[in-house]
Amino acid sequence: MLEHVTSRWGVLILAALLERSYRFSELRRHVGGVSEKMLAQTLQALERDGFVHRDAKPVIPPRVDYSLTPMGHEVAEQVWTLTRWVEDRLDDVFEAREAYDGAREP
Amino acid sequence: MLEHVTSRWGVLILAALLERSYRFSELRRHVGGVSEKMLAQTLQALERDGFVHRDAKPVIPPRVDYSLTPMGHEVAEQVWTLTRWVEDRLDDVFEAREAYDGAREP
Repeated sequence: MLEHVTSRWGVLILAALLERSYRFSELRRHVGGVSEKMLAQTLQALERDGFVHRDAKPVIPPRVDYSLTPMGHEVAEQVWTLTRWVEDRLDDVFEAREAYDGAREP
Repeated sequence: MLEHVTSRWGVLILAALLERSYRFSELRRHVGGVSEKMLAQTLQALERDGFVHRDAKPVIPPRVDYSLTPMGHEVAEQVWTLTRWVEDRLDDVFEAREAYDGAREP
């Protein structure tokens, strides 16, 4: 379950839904590079865990909106804080990796 | 990189090292169910990212201690906060899953 919210797509979907609700196709455009299948699977896992609300409007053509539940909002904020921390430390991480890889070269 | 610290074993290893440093075999006993190979891989990824310090003492028999770097300590505390939040919400998540699965049964 922690992996549902910290997976690559989980993080990006939660971050998008922190701003506002999205339709499936909008969300797919917003979260660049995600396949339709992967987006559907990730949304379904987040919906099943109670983090995302799926609102299927009985209109023609069909319209489905995705938004965060109150619990989803809480987890999204925490994951987003962690993600920002990680982004701020990327330079340090890359430096560590270079030192690590350099020490292991012949 | 976020996945290195939020993977199942990543979380448990960081949590253990928040308490104190560990030798490889101690850590393996402490983090129940992890294979030697998986523990070695996870520690190596965390070391390469600069989160874990590997201290190989030049003694006989060889002795290797693993501990958190200052950056590793910071990320471990954040991941631990998130993990505790998730654990506190497990009942809500299981309830959401039951409702979700129930609504989809014939």
